[in-house]
Amino acid sequence: MAKKKLTYQDAGVDIGLYEQSLAGMLPFIKRTHTPRVLDGFGGFAALFSLDYNCRLFAKNYRHPVLVTCNDGVGTKLKVAGLMNKHDTVGIDLVAMSVNDCLCTGGEPLMFLDYLALPKDDPPLIKEIIKGISAGCIQADCALVGGETAILPDFYQPGDYDLAGFCVGVVEREHIIDGRAIQVGDVVLGLASTGLHSNGYSLARKIVFEHAGLKVTDHVPELGRTVGEELLEPTRIYVKAVHNVLDHYPIKKHVVRGLAHITGEGLPGNIPRVLPPGKRVFLKRGSWPIPPVFPWLQKLGDIEQAEMDMVFNNGIGFVMIVSSYFAESIQRQVTDGGVPTHVIGEVRDGEADVEWY
Amino acid sequence: MAKKKLTYQDAGVDIGLYEQSLAGMLPFIKRTHTPRVLDGFGGFAALFSLDYNCRLFAKNYRHPVLVTCNDGVGTKLKVAGLMNKHDTVGIDLVAMSVNDCLCTGGEPLMFLDYLALPKDDPPLIKEIIKGISAGCIQADCALVGGETAILPDFYQPGDYDLAGFCVGVVEREHIIDGRAIQVGDVVLGLASTGLHSNGYSLARKIVFEHAGLKVTDHVPELGRTVGEELLEPTRIYVKAVHNVLDHYPIKKHVVRGLAHITGEGLPGNIPRVLPPGKRVFLKRGSWPIPPVFPWLQKLGDIEQAEMDMVFNNGIGFVMIVSSYFAESIQRQVTDGGVPTHVIGEVRDGEADVEWY
Repeated sequence: MAKKKLTYQDAGVDIGLYEQSLAGMLPFIKRTHTPRVLDGFGGFAALFSLDYNCRLFAKNYRHPVLVTCNDGVGTKLKVAGLMNKHDTVGIDLVAMSVNDCLCTGGEPLMFLDYLALPKDDPPLIKEIIKGISAGCIQADCALVGGETAILPDFYQPGDYDLAGFCVGVVEREHIIDGRAIQVGDVVLGLASTGLHSNGYSLARKIVFEHAGLKVTDHVPELGRTVGEELLEPTRIYVKAVHNVLDHYPIKKHVVRGLAHITGEGLPGNIPRVLPPGKRVFLKRGSWPIPPVFPWLQKLGDIEQAEMDMVFNNGIGFVMIVSSYFAESIQRQVTDGGVPTHVIGEVRDGEADVEWY
Repeated sequence: MAKKKLTYQDAGVDIGLYEQSLAGMLPFIKRTHTPRVLDGFGGFAALFSLDYNCRLFAKNYRHPVLVTCNDGVGTKLKVAGLMNKHDTVGIDLVAMSVNDCLCTGGEPLMFLDYLALPKDDPPLIKEIIKGISAGCIQADCALVGGETAILPDFYQPGDYDLAGFCVGVVEREHIIDGRAIQVGDVVLGLASTGLHSNGYSLARKIVFEHAGLKVTDHVPELGRTVGEELLEPTRIYVKAVHNVLDHYPIKKHVVRGLAHITGEGLPGNIPRVLPPGKRVFLKRGSWPIPPVFPWLQKLGDIEQAEMDMVFNNGIGFVMIVSSYFAESIQRQVTDGGVPTHVIGEVRDGEADVEWY
């Protein structure tokens, strides 16, 4: 018998399976597209028209500034694996980048994903892309590309990693960068849906190692299982915040600072937009803390300062706004489906966060 | 003794080390920046001015189309691990995306990376970012952002994964999409530097498993060690190809199709830009094959068709050009440092690649 020649498939790469995966993704990709996504230009790159083709809707950016962000989902993916539910981590992936893009006042336009897994698995890939597509629709952005890497030497069976990348645009004069923040401005906190996608190394250590719980365990304080709570998708704030930005003439500088509350929590993220000499005072107890946070704190015996630095504690996004418009903005965002609270104010002082 | 309270650091996340990593990266990031990168806008997103600030150099895009691409390096990273040399895989990472962007005629503007590793390791991260920065300089694009994810639960000690994202721009009227390709056009092949970043699952299987070689083994046919050959960085074609594009008035449609030769080789990538009814005939033996390819083929006893489908076989980028200008373009690109050969021609037929 002739010695069998080596092929690419022997080395773990199956192009047929890849085509099958692609076919499964396509409807989820296509549903995020608008006429600004230019089709039919080969497959090397995605093309996106910065201006609308139709003059009626033309934005005619005078000085367009591109906004780019990228992020991953981190070990929340491990929870998805334990639950064997993979159609929501894509929402987290999109949220992490588009909420960052939003902090500049930018409008997310496009999203691309990188998915690395140990073997081609069309049904799994379809579930993941379904979630990414759902996130893109929530953020009004187009899923224009992505890379699926089959890396049997890197990932354990069942594991995968996800990275996301967002491109947005903002008119230069409309960039929100915190420079306009003034003493007396109001700090609005937009409710998170839970842990979002940060602090999972600690949360998993507490829940699975320290307390020995399983994803299927029901927790009375949470009214649901451990897994359901930990897999709750990150909230996407794009539409709620852009509704506000579009409502006021940009020249009024009504919205002065925007911060996405991720790793390092409120005290770590708010200072990223504070100008020198402006200090944010946050009032403890001024917003309802979702039950997952006290539950984790008690379960792991975590110091309050550690809780503040690792988790969002119920506030996923912060808007620093003119006090004159604060009440109206708070109502607009809440009416738009995102419960919003006055959580603090801007005073003189070193650019940092202080509790009171 | 009081029970020790759990902290984020206990869970494997060390923010001090992270800051150290960041400091190491910064000079390599900054050296890729031009005035178009807008600094000082907090850290949530990268901002890039689409037009130059200076009117003299203003590009004044009439209808800017954004070009986005992403890709990883795949298991070439394993070779970097075996060599314990991490300052060149970043070049591969940038190359994979910017060469794709180039296929539209686009100019790469910005690059972002996603780096996932099992623990924070400032010296390793610095080496990797150094390579990414070198690649960005070769491609004339700015390294504007990135995410370093510490995921001890996903990656084995010593392993890491890398993904890259590129944003470019092209004037709508200048998009190169292959539609202008005509019978009689000449196919120019631009030399690769070796394997580039594709086919490593097969190459590693042949070299390390099948032949039992080590990275330090010297190979007479290659004139260097196995590891040196397999780690040779991917060539970046951006400057060489844009020199040509800038040389001819765009209305002449001198350059009609561009293809980056990655996974699936010449026969898999050239058809991605062929219009219906145009067939590319490639002439075997019309370009010098770098020694790594016959060496691998012999070592693994690989069929020629398999070689063609998995490896670039010495051609990393293809330009399909007007026959009238072919010789001049070939000379320009070669003089610019990228050896270029006439490797085939366009004839009537089904849109595919055929050998003669």
